[in-house]
Amino acid sequence: MTAPLAPHSVIGILGGGQLAKMLVQAAAELGFRVAIYSDDWGPALDVAGSHLIGPYENLARLDEFARAVDVVTYEFENVPVIAAEHLARRVPVRPGPQALRVAQDRSVEKAFIAGLGIPIAPFAVIKNAGDVAAAAKTMSDWQSAAILKTARLGYDGKGQAGVATPADLAAAFASLGSVPAVLERRIDFAFEISMLVVRSLDGSLACYDPPRNTHAGGILRTSLVPAGLAANVEAQARSIAERIATELEYVGVLGVEMFYLGEASATPLLVNEIAPRVHNSGHWTMDACAVSQFENHIRAVAGWPLGATARHSDAEMRNLIGDDVEAWPSLATDRDLCLHLYGKREARPGRKMGHVTRLSPRLD
Amino acid sequence: MTAPLAPHSVIGILGGGQLAKMLVQAAAELGFRVAIYSDDWGPALDVAGSHLIGPYENLARLDEFARAVDVVTYEFENVPVIAAEHLARRVPVRPGPQALRVAQDRSVEKAFIAGLGIPIAPFAVIKNAGDVAAAAKTMSDWQSAAILKTARLGYDGKGQAGVATPADLAAAFASLGSVPAVLERRIDFAFEISMLVVRSLDGSLACYDPPRNTHAGGILRTSLVPAGLAANVEAQARSIAERIATELEYVGVLGVEMFYLGEASATPLLVNEIAPRVHNSGHWTMDACAVSQFENHIRAVAGWPLGATARHSDAEMRNLIGDDVEAWPSLATDRDLCLHLYGKREARPGRKMGHVTRLSPRLD
Repeated sequence: MTAPLAPHSVIGILGGGQLAKMLVQAAAELGFRVAIYSDDWGPALDVAGSHLIGPYENLARLDEFARAVDVVTYEFENVPVIAAEHLARRVPVRPGPQALRVAQDRSVEKAFIAGLGIPIAPFAVIKNAGDVAAAAKTMSDWQSAAILKTARLGYDGKGQAGVATPADLAAAFASLGSVPAVLERRIDFAFEISMLVVRSLDGSLACYDPPRNTHAGGILRTSLVPAGLAANVEAQARSIAERIATELEYVGVLGVEMFYLGEASATPLLVNEIAPRVHNSGHWTMDACAVSQFENHIRAVAGWPLGATARHSDAEMRNLIGDDVEAWPSLATDRDLCLHLYGKREARPGRKMGHVTRLSPRLD
Repeated sequence: MTAPLAPHSVIGILGGGQLAKMLVQAAAELGFRVAIYSDDWGPALDVAGSHLIGPYENLARLDEFARAVDVVTYEFENVPVIAAEHLARRVPVRPGPQALRVAQDRSVEKAFIAGLGIPIAPFAVIKNAGDVAAAAKTMSDWQSAAILKTARLGYDGKGQAGVATPADLAAAFASLGSVPAVLERRIDFAFEISMLVVRSLDGSLACYDPPRNTHAGGILRTSLVPAGLAANVEAQARSIAERIATELEYVGVLGVEMFYLGEASATPLLVNEIAPRVHNSGHWTMDACAVSQFENHIRAVAGWPLGATARHSDAEMRNLIGDDVEAWPSLATDRDLCLHLYGKREARPGRKMGHVTRLSPRLD
């Protein structure tokens, strides 16, 4: 058993965005120092004790970073695996590069999850134009519309195209740049939920209560807790998330997005995708739980025991996207809102600028 | 009406200790940047966007600080008034220098509070050795033991001496260095409470639920909420705190320590002292309230409306003093503790190194 990292140790974070910022804040509450490695300015740099800016592929710069930190984690799944592997030869990287390898490629991720016997939406892999005809045939069998998603580098709805009929598939594939992609059957779900599971270095597991999520334009808008799931379905969701985290030998917080098809369905839950990091749908834990997803991620990464994941309040989190943030003066007058502004300098369309959480007394 | 400071504005804080650190964290959550001015290294410097280190009397350095910030606040009441006044000619200083002038001198503070008709412990001012005899005579009338406290620069029990009988007063005065002091009648109280009141720039007021506090060696050890006061006594405590904040034209969080003498007493509450800053006995608000004392202080200082002060949970806060912090590995295993470590590099005796808060469901 590795000893837990002592306070004053330095936690290295790859990435400088709002998730990194919230990780920095949580680490600071536990007495850790934080160093950021990022390829650009981001709001985490305003709160971190130190930072390095450089390309993620600059191995010499990564060496400099490795010498300055006691452990490395990351805020986004598109960290080049080569960077994570290079760092992992010098300093512990948690979660390990294996989680990145799986999560960075939808076709690998889906094969991995399906291989565990966990229900997912039917899919077909399209590596190149030669696979389009076979995928169109598969789609015909589904008798359903579908979504084509690039295998790599998609987030917040980017790298996706709707496919109404099999005849539309070739054009959709071309529209995404003819890069490797995954075709997914469109699922007629009741609503979406997510599980935030955290796994410690010694394999202990804990889950937050799953929120019910709404999206618009591919971007998360709201997360509501409790989601209103039956207890047996919620238990199944926990079991799925814990199984995935365990199979990945994961350390830290893992987000597992799921479609809920309704109680009448033979498979009420299908896994949509996983995110090997703290997750936007867990932001409500900052205000409604004694220990947030960010603190539990830091605890896990530092080799500490996990903190409680129970919620003390019901919560509704709403993202502030782009211009939404301009409403801060009126949001600040709503005494029951917990307001979080990320400090990004420019409110571009589609950019996550902050979030608000409304707490209410826990009813169950 | 002054416009509220926009996110990205820079909040300047005088002082770099743990209170400043927690203010920095709260400011960052609202999207502000923070600059620290401190005369020494402190844990706030690890989280602040920028800092200046210099003596508080270095006016040229203060000018440099004033140019870098949009508003100034402070984490401790012993900021030299000359520094606060110098800054206040350049940039808003909140709370204003008037609060410092009152709180820095116990004799001024007691005259101010007594002048408002608010009950306080009987006291006598000793400016120099020539006043000792008269004070001893006053003490004889009290028929009680007393405490001698230096008028200035006392905190955490420093600058205090017990006085068992009037005959001991001269020696006690000498033991404190024969500096101006205040002799207070020792009060036989049931327990101590504190009110954390916050006042906004437009004069709005809000109070947190008052904790019941225990001290040892002059240092706060625990704060328990709820304190177990009758509703009418609690209302009186709020009224006293709000009156003081209003009369001081105060902006920010003000701590008002009170002795509770029991319901049978004609004056159940006596004000002990005030602290023109966020207060150790309010640390539980970080975990048990949607908006902490730190966020509400920042809101007030930034000219924002106040956030809610209601608690969602009952709470017991315990300070980690000196070596207490060495227990962090076992504290980390207690899943129901919210753990806060300040990141100070050396655990000297009597030094506040962190605190833990245990939350429990709100019972009333």
